[in-house]
Amino acid sequence: MEAEDQLIDRIARSLSSGNGRAKERGGAGSLVKFGIGDDTALLSPSGESDCILTCDAFIEGVHFLRDLHPADSVGYKALARAASDIAAMGGIPRAFLLTLALPQALTGRWLCHFLSGMKRAARNLGAQLIGGDTTQSRQVFISITVLGQTQRGRALLRSGARPGDLIYVSGRLGHAQLGLELLRHGVAKRPSRDRALRAALRQHLYPAIRVELGAWLAQRRIPSAMMDLSDGLSTDLPRLCRASGVGARIDSQRIPCVEIPPRAASGLRRVQLNPLQLALDGGEDYELLLTVPRRNMAILRRAPGFSQLTAVGEITRERKILLLDRNGRAQPLQPRGWDPFRTVQGEIAGSRY
Amino acid sequence: MEAEDQLIDRIARSLSSGNGRAKERGGAGSLVKFGIGDDTALLSPSGESDCILTCDAFIEGVHFLRDLHPADSVGYKALARAASDIAAMGGIPRAFLLTLALPQALTGRWLCHFLSGMKRAARNLGAQLIGGDTTQSRQVFISITVLGQTQRGRALLRSGARPGDLIYVSGRLGHAQLGLELLRHGVAKRPSRDRALRAALRQHLYPAIRVELGAWLAQRRIPSAMMDLSDGLSTDLPRLCRASGVGARIDSQRIPCVEIPPRAASGLRRVQLNPLQLALDGGEDYELLLTVPRRNMAILRRAPGFSQLTAVGEITRERKILLLDRNGRAQPLQPRGWDPFRTVQGEIAGSRY
Repeated sequence: MEAEDQLIDRIARSLSSGNGRAKERGGAGSLVKFGIGDDTALLSPSGESDCILTCDAFIEGVHFLRDLHPADSVGYKALARAASDIAAMGGIPRAFLLTLALPQALTGRWLCHFLSGMKRAARNLGAQLIGGDTTQSRQVFISITVLGQTQRGRALLRSGARPGDLIYVSGRLGHAQLGLELLRHGVAKRPSRDRALRAALRQHLYPAIRVELGAWLAQRRIPSAMMDLSDGLSTDLPRLCRASGVGARIDSQRIPCVEIPPRAASGLRRVQLNPLQLALDGGEDYELLLTVPRRNMAILRRAPGFSQLTAVGEITRERKILLLDRNGRAQPLQPRGWDPFRTVQGEIAGSRY
Repeated sequence: MEAEDQLIDRIARSLSSGNGRAKERGGAGSLVKFGIGDDTALLSPSGESDCILTCDAFIEGVHFLRDLHPADSVGYKALARAASDIAAMGGIPRAFLLTLALPQALTGRWLCHFLSGMKRAARNLGAQLIGGDTTQSRQVFISITVLGQTQRGRALLRSGARPGDLIYVSGRLGHAQLGLELLRHGVAKRPSRDRALRAALRQHLYPAIRVELGAWLAQRRIPSAMMDLSDGLSTDLPRLCRASGVGARIDSQRIPCVEIPPRAASGLRRVQLNPLQLALDGGEDYELLLTVPRRNMAILRRAPGFSQLTAVGEITRERKILLLDRNGRAQPLQPRGWDPFRTVQGEIAGSRY
């Protein structure tokens, strides 16, 4: 057996539950008939569900730096960020394909940690590896395709927001960007003993994805529109508004900003971090951005993650994106989230279509 | 609108039939409800078909060289070779996702030709772009995910070959490898005026994929096993045999080898090309390799592409892969197809799982 086939076997053994013929997943969600081991994976969708499909690149020197990001975080995050698009539609991740190109020198210890991180993400998300492609390259290239399911007709698009709908975000925004700054400036060595720093790093290295909340909301058709925050609220909110043909007004005082831990604040004094700016422009939070018609407010309050949701503003008829400052003055919100074609090499960026 | 969003719009306009809400494809094959423009694509499978899913990497310096391969060929081949896995299951390609990472400097003319090549492949294959991810990187990295459909239960796996089954290949083997050698050694400048050279180059630059033949065979359940020849017969036949738990004996005199055009032969004198070796070890032919129980021979003769099929040997109970030489002596067949982890940088290689 040649080198590549051995590597494929190792990846398959590390990540998949079965050898070749994948075990059927229990219950009505059963979908995968055959995973790794043939020319393609084979799926038998039930006809009661819709399938949703997304792909996401994760590239050394663009989305991560090999000397800054541990290999298990690269594996974890590559899958988690791709699955975030599934959560953003209100779907459940079911299966994924892994395209992995890497230097021969990384096929030992580095790959082992990478696969262990990815396996942990796959278990957390309930997604099964069903295929992929592995090859050699000078830098690490990862592309993940995730297949998810929603109840037929219940997927949540970006295009349904209407004037008067309330705008919600989940969680606190800016965590991931703060985590990156901590790593970059050597404030937090991983693993950090400081609990506050650890929390700030976690969303950057091992992002939690809002699958349950997204699916609960979609099943009950509560939001009029939903997407995930991958490039920052200031970039992603305009995208949702463009798709819906509306505008928005959000209140800077209501945005749930990341808190900068005291140890980080002193270590990052030179960087001059502003919590609001981190929350507006920081990428990779993978929180949900949703718009909710007022008639659905009563049901929304019953959401299992309702305490995690914050109303930050309102959808408007006028197609402008406005930010109310602390004095109540409305300013146009500038999209300053990350764009891989605007950043220079060595910065970290990414998004998808 | 920022640079990345503009690029995404350009890719979407170049490759997709609709803007955002993808037009439904006519007939029972209708599957795609929503393509580009949201977090994920949305598909409503009918319940009468199985879905098949595969991904395939195509990387600068590994699978193609930027100074040797025209951009439109890179676009064409990236999609065609991924779709070949769908044909190998007897499926029809329906939709694809494109992960594209490239240097800023290539987003002009190079990208334009790349997209035009990919559009031509998409039209030939009947596949629609439904999503993707675009980012910046130092080298060109492409990963394509193709979604196909087969009639429920009719997908052709590698694992069904049984002793006594006849082994068939489609087309002539070694064309793609010969085309690569012609390019490498500067024998054929593209476009070549020599018709024989043009034919030899075509399968390397713009590979034809056997979608119709594969689907016809699968619908009638004629083969017991099928796969595509992406890494060379000497590497792919052992894979089929391993999956089926059998061996094989093929006859070197029966293998439909590429003919080396006289002009190429003189230009390639130093390279010492052997047609049989090209046919056995040359990668990227994307022809079909299938095994057929003798009871299905009568129906096989009615296949629309039957004249393109050649019986090259027989499946055996003994798990050895043997090649009968010109004197009728059986030799073990050495797998000498390409393996990206065995080749050095600058060579061209690839395969998938």
